[in-house]
Amino acid sequence: MTDWLQQPIAAIDDEARVAARARQGVLTKPPGSLGRLEQLAEAFAGWQGRVVPALSDIDIVVFAADHGVAARGVSAFDPAVTGQMIANFAAGGAAICVLAQRRDARLSIVDLGAVAPPANYAGVIDARIAAGTADFTESPAMQVGELEQALQAGRERVSSSAQLFIGGEMGIGNTTAAAAILAGLTGAAPAEVVGRGTGIDSGGLARKQAVVAAGLDRHRPSWDGLDGPAKALAVLRCVGGFEIAGLTGAFVAAAQAGVPVLMDGFIASVAALCAREIAPDCGRWQLFGHCSAEAGHRYLLETLDAKPLLDLGMRLGEGSGAALALGVIGDALALHAGMATFAEAGVTSGGANA
Amino acid sequence: MTDWLQQPIAAIDDEARVAARARQGVLTKPPGSLGRLEQLAEAFAGWQGRVVPALSDIDIVVFAADHGVAARGVSAFDPAVTGQMIANFAAGGAAICVLAQRRDARLSIVDLGAVAPPANYAGVIDARIAAGTADFTESPAMQVGELEQALQAGRERVSSSAQLFIGGEMGIGNTTAAAAILAGLTGAAPAEVVGRGTGIDSGGLARKQAVVAAGLDRHRPSWDGLDGPAKALAVLRCVGGFEIAGLTGAFVAAAQAGVPVLMDGFIASVAALCAREIAPDCGRWQLFGHCSAEAGHRYLLETLDAKPLLDLGMRLGEGSGAALALGVIGDALALHAGMATFAEAGVTSGGANA
Repeated sequence: MTDWLQQPIAAIDDEARVAARARQGVLTKPPGSLGRLEQLAEAFAGWQGRVVPALSDIDIVVFAADHGVAARGVSAFDPAVTGQMIANFAAGGAAICVLAQRRDARLSIVDLGAVAPPANYAGVIDARIAAGTADFTESPAMQVGELEQALQAGRERVSSSAQLFIGGEMGIGNTTAAAAILAGLTGAAPAEVVGRGTGIDSGGLARKQAVVAAGLDRHRPSWDGLDGPAKALAVLRCVGGFEIAGLTGAFVAAAQAGVPVLMDGFIASVAALCAREIAPDCGRWQLFGHCSAEAGHRYLLETLDAKPLLDLGMRLGEGSGAALALGVIGDALALHAGMATFAEAGVTSGGANA
Repeated sequence: MTDWLQQPIAAIDDEARVAARARQGVLTKPPGSLGRLEQLAEAFAGWQGRVVPALSDIDIVVFAADHGVAARGVSAFDPAVTGQMIANFAAGGAAICVLAQRRDARLSIVDLGAVAPPANYAGVIDARIAAGTADFTESPAMQVGELEQALQAGRERVSSSAQLFIGGEMGIGNTTAAAAILAGLTGAAPAEVVGRGTGIDSGGLARKQAVVAAGLDRHRPSWDGLDGPAKALAVLRCVGGFEIAGLTGAFVAAAQAGVPVLMDGFIASVAALCAREIAPDCGRWQLFGHCSAEAGHRYLLETLDAKPLLDLGMRLGEGSGAALALGVIGDALALHAGMATFAEAGVTSGGANA
């Protein structure tokens, strides 16, 4: 049922990438002076296999689900909010809705298991697995079949015709699950990776750290001695969540289909780590949108050797940080396509004293 | 002739600012989770005097001029490029043209004194003062009347109906002039603030540092013992440039007219510093768009206590970094205006464990 995770990752077109770099060298600006924008144009050239890439077909998919561990008082919000926010996504009132519209991106909302689902599913994809995961301090968050369903639900949301995929998430308690996965996979101490999430107070933060530590202690025997995909799947199943597994499945499937993924914040990046543990080469199709204010994100970005485009103190999730960064990518590609070359503009290129 | 520089700076509407902050607290997201985007919405509310600010009337003005000091071999490019780039700006081929169009901003190009002016001035404002400044290693860069003309030319480009002003620049040798101004105003050592500009090699960098040191040694008696506006104007005149003075005049005039200014990189920020030395309160109308890769910019941003929105390794000038950051501001205001409130969306607000 998870054999598909081991299918090959798509190749990158190095020739187009090199040609894009050459084009950057003759645009009317000092070479290198557009910094990371030049690298973005080159990366998309390699991903799209053309010297002048475009970006008009963008999928933003928000996976929503609840977490049994929320009962342990790890969030400033009530789990009922997950279902309410699904309705808000469908109605266009959430941050990601505003940004998706501005970017002319397709926005899909997937309910993988809110405890209090919305009254109607207009504009929402119903892929419910259960009414939230189990409390990982008491049992594995997911059964094997549930994990497989969540991974597959992510995979099904990837269209091979898309030019970019953004995976967002919503789920009260999911920074707790994400921190537990990160600690489980890397051996980091809970204090290093547990943050305030939506804004829990100091007492709640201590509780959250203890909950993560308890979950890891209970389930470590399930992955001790394992590594690679087997370990990643065990950690994800025992302390993860439906939406994090959905993101993981989507990120692997996107890399297999040759669709680059623009990562959002802490939770999406934890899924990016899981995807790399399952299929190491899929990192070549990952781009990081922003650095979250959530405590564990900087540690995680270092682990991933990832340098996000933006650092604006955001910590909302939903794919919002990635959607912000999408603006920079659009600018980078527009500059790459639209600027005149030295020859076209009759401008003398540099080097006199270089 | 420079009396206008001392006219009062516009007031900020604190009531609108506070009301905007309150609105951010009831939008469907954890309070504070949009980070700097929330601060941007609040700042524009204060600048525009309304709870839900808009941003549709944006001026980008690029001031171009040449520098006598370019004869000292301080740039990787030939001064002829300044005039060629003016033509490229007018023809729409430069980076700032692509970005201005994407942002639906008005772009104006002002020639304050290229050594090799373009053949025709269609699409260019001719405000030429001289064919470049004098070489500041030999004499003051500007005469008193020339400085006044440059400041005034900047002032004339500010429209009080604009909702945002971006000042860009182009001028071979202008990182040398900007570094000299910065060192002159702050006492920084040339090695701290002189960078590679458009990409000069190590020999050129050493030469550039020596040129800045020589300029400062020659002209320091002109401002020794002065402070505030008198010192700033003396430094600007002796080692500055027409386009840097134009930016300075524009930044002071914008703050007087109640038009916020979005700063570009190193050179614009040096002009921001000059403007604050001349009229300290104008800092309240300054916002910083990006951190340049040019060596002196981080030092300067610390001096200004400014935290730019973006850090993308750019070092192009023209207002390009500010135009990039404009995308983030547009997103911030769209979120502030377009997101649903907790009450509108029927979402339970946080606090259960907060």
